[in-house]
Amino acid sequence: MRSGKEEQKLLKFTLDDGTGVDRVILSEIHMYYEPEELVGKTLLAITNLPPRPMMGIESCGMLISAVHHEEGEERLHLIMLDNHIPAGAKMY
Amino acid sequence: MRSGKEEQKLLKFTLDDGTGVDRVILSEIHMYYEPEELVGKTLLAITNLPPRPMMGIESCGMLISAVHHEEGEERLHLIMLDNHIPAGAKMY
Repeated sequence: MRSGKEEQKLLKFTLDDGTGVDRVILSEIHMYYEPEELVGKTLLAITNLPPRPMMGIESCGMLISAVHHEEGEERLHLIMLDNHIPAGAKMY
Repeated sequence: MRSGKEEQKLLKFTLDDGTGVDRVILSEIHMYYEPEELVGKTLLAITNLPPRPMMGIESCGMLISAVHHEEGEERLHLIMLDNHIPAGAKMY
């Protein structure tokens, strides 16, 4: 997802959400992460949202990040879970 | 919070939410954690909820856990964040 101005911001995730069917989520976090850093990580997502088309692809959910400011700059960290939490665990 | 049947389920958290004023949240997770295990951890909470009285104390928010089933049993893990995410970071 690296060509074009809009696309440069987006990362496309193909996720195991525990259902057996891959879930695709697009997220505007390429300023903060390279795709290689995120392979195999367990992330937190809101999945009960209607699919949203982004750059011609349906994004089926929203990844959750923690955002704060440090030295006048916005810092963003995807929320990453420990490996003992399996794909498909629910948030309560 | 250990006397009485209802109280045995509850843990009372006194949290730094980045505002400078402690935030108290009660959570029914004593079956899963002892208080000592949780000192100093960075947790995830929903804080834009009206305070809710529990056992005579106002609980000002809800801690977020991941829940799944393993060998027929419910497993619960509080979502714990890395130390590079400061108290008061916002979820997006």
